[in-house]
Amino acid sequence: MALIVQKYGGTSVGTTDRIKNVAKRILESQRQGNQVIAVVSAMSGVTNKLIDLAAAVSDKPTRREMDVLLATGEQTTIALVSMAINQMGGRAVSFTGGQAGIRTNSAHTQARIQDIDAESVKERLDGGEIVILAGFQGVSDAGRITTLGRGGSDLTAIAMAAAVKADLCQIFTDVDGVYTCDPRVVPKARRIPEISYDEMLEMASSGSKVMQSRSVEFAKKFGVPFEVRCSMNNNPGTLVTEEHPNMESVVIRGVSLERNQAKVTILDVPDTPGSASAIFQALGEADVNVDMIVQNVSKEGFAKISFTVPEDQLAAAQNALKSVTERIGSGPVESLTGVAKLSAVGIGMRSHSGVAGTMFDALATAGISIQMISTSEIKIAVTISEAEADEAARVVHAVFGLDASPSEA
Amino acid sequence: MALIVQKYGGTSVGTTDRIKNVAKRILESQRQGNQVIAVVSAMSGVTNKLIDLAAAVSDKPTRREMDVLLATGEQTTIALVSMAINQMGGRAVSFTGGQAGIRTNSAHTQARIQDIDAESVKERLDGGEIVILAGFQGVSDAGRITTLGRGGSDLTAIAMAAAVKADLCQIFTDVDGVYTCDPRVVPKARRIPEISYDEMLEMASSGSKVMQSRSVEFAKKFGVPFEVRCSMNNNPGTLVTEEHPNMESVVIRGVSLERNQAKVTILDVPDTPGSASAIFQALGEADVNVDMIVQNVSKEGFAKISFTVPEDQLAAAQNALKSVTERIGSGPVESLTGVAKLSAVGIGMRSHSGVAGTMFDALATAGISIQMISTSEIKIAVTISEAEADEAARVVHAVFGLDASPSEA
Repeated sequence: MALIVQKYGGTSVGTTDRIKNVAKRILESQRQGNQVIAVVSAMSGVTNKLIDLAAAVSDKPTRREMDVLLATGEQTTIALVSMAINQMGGRAVSFTGGQAGIRTNSAHTQARIQDIDAESVKERLDGGEIVILAGFQGVSDAGRITTLGRGGSDLTAIAMAAAVKADLCQIFTDVDGVYTCDPRVVPKARRIPEISYDEMLEMASSGSKVMQSRSVEFAKKFGVPFEVRCSMNNNPGTLVTEEHPNMESVVIRGVSLERNQAKVTILDVPDTPGSASAIFQALGEADVNVDMIVQNVSKEGFAKISFTVPEDQLAAAQNALKSVTERIGSGPVESLTGVAKLSAVGIGMRSHSGVAGTMFDALATAGISIQMISTSEIKIAVTISEAEADEAARVVHAVFGLDASPSEA
Repeated sequence: MALIVQKYGGTSVGTTDRIKNVAKRILESQRQGNQVIAVVSAMSGVTNKLIDLAAAVSDKPTRREMDVLLATGEQTTIALVSMAINQMGGRAVSFTGGQAGIRTNSAHTQARIQDIDAESVKERLDGGEIVILAGFQGVSDAGRITTLGRGGSDLTAIAMAAAVKADLCQIFTDVDGVYTCDPRVVPKARRIPEISYDEMLEMASSGSKVMQSRSVEFAKKFGVPFEVRCSMNNNPGTLVTEEHPNMESVVIRGVSLERNQAKVTILDVPDTPGSASAIFQALGEADVNVDMIVQNVSKEGFAKISFTVPEDQLAAAQNALKSVTERIGSGPVESLTGVAKLSAVGIGMRSHSGVAGTMFDALATAGISIQMISTSEIKIAVTISEAEADEAARVVHAVFGLDASPSEA
């Protein structure tokens, strides 16, 4: 008998019909001889409606009360899923985050899990019941309801899997797992059967938003293998796990694309200690998400610093730079919009040389100019013109042998 | 400094604008120098939507899960009211029933309050905060969310008032308190400034559904005076309290009317022990609400038993009577629909004689026939034809001096 934690997102439980479908899947998992904990999100749309209600009574709703409000979304779903399972002849019991012993700090709306006392959950499982657990929420030491912020339900599932030492954690979503690239961009993209935590993290930070990095990091830290799969069909998904030697035979696991970026370049930055730090501190204070950073010596004693920001944060970035560039005595700030970031990710590149060269060659052959280059141990990222982004993704996807053969496509 | 418990029903918090209005009232009460606990219901319509959701996933939703579902209604309101107060510069904190220490038995969907540990509520009040408490809900010893059934939010307010020894409990609703009769029937009806628990109970059981009897009984048991008043204006309401000698100067406090009744008569019931018991047991098992019961000797050794039931339960009553009348060997069952029940209620009738005579006279003078009569120490009830009900109510209201003078009307 295996102990499985499943997680169903808001789309999977978005209507009462879908809830019945999810209930059936959960019950089938139990009837196959497993103990099952199912973590569920708020029905899609519900959270936004609650946020609208809050906005109607307050410009700046108290975070503590926001959590009380938002937590009703998942509480509604756990009750409905449990009822649906009971209706089908199963025995399910619902748990709010607090009831399940998920204790967090008091950082309302973005609380961090500190500890899980899963005793009552385990008792119910041992009594033959299915546990339906509200995702995204916990309780603080003060007994207040807290929520975990973005991607919170995934985190609940992975943390609960770690707490009960589950044999498997399944993250059900509306896609068939993680793909080698976005199939809307690269029609020959394939599902990745297995991926390491680190690759998944690099993919997530490069635009493949199947899951928030936070949950993957948590899974990595506690060694919880998990599977990302579709709640609407029975297709196999993607297993995310510790890396093992076999994984290195694939050089590049996937390619990801992030659009709507802007490139900012600061010319003639005096090459004195503290210049770069002053720049990025000013951007941080303005809440600008800086991504790729590249620095080059431009002329004796001066550097050229380039970085990317999301296009809709460009104005904020330019604003933040005004006073700091004056203060450090640098040259003018240039910016370029219509930029895309293309990343190739794979732990295999650690043991294979020439990967960067292969990628740059392929782009050059296709006549695509590279603007910036940034690399990590398992990722090569370039920025290119957004107009050439799709073509670039297809070219890189093909050159690393990721294209599906005709029979697979 | 007084400690006040206020209760706002579903209509009073039915929209975000009304929530802001309620927030303002609560904050004003505090700014007048009081400590305030406000009990709020689910926004009107929300509970029905939740019930519809449950019905969509299950024919017979688990009661335990129904409570988890329904409790989200009040939880949403406490968050919104707290946010609205905080937005206005106040300091409010929300409490679910469980957080407020309202412990109940495990009779899900109709739980009974067993105990309230109001320590954390008191701490917040002493810290200068306003406590916004979810009505209608509590927590069982097993840590499960429970709900209190119909009128549960009133009960929460009165029970919390008893627990914290509040100076006053205010039940805000959509009417200006309790009236001498339904103003739609008797245009000269007036608001009753003060009424005893017992009178209120008799009014409630006779069709004046301002509050459920259960909450009034609880208030009586624990000696909690409370005021029923309107949340939409600042009019004075009705104070419900222990009776005191002054109250007896008014003979009849109010008149109430209950329509859509049916009268059932069983002829020739053998006058043997157990006959009546067999009849009413059978009706009880069929969940028929039997009201006025009148028994007369019809002929030597036989009785005629009459009683009223809500018209929509007549078929069930007739059905339940079939086998029992056969078994006890009684005569045929007759029934009459289109019946109304008119009651005159007042503790003053205990010390005034001739009250029944005055009422019957007035009805006779108006040419209205009385079908059945039933009395308690503080109530005289008659059944009459529904067609004459409005006229009968006006006549009785007038004869006991309840009509407003022209200047009051």
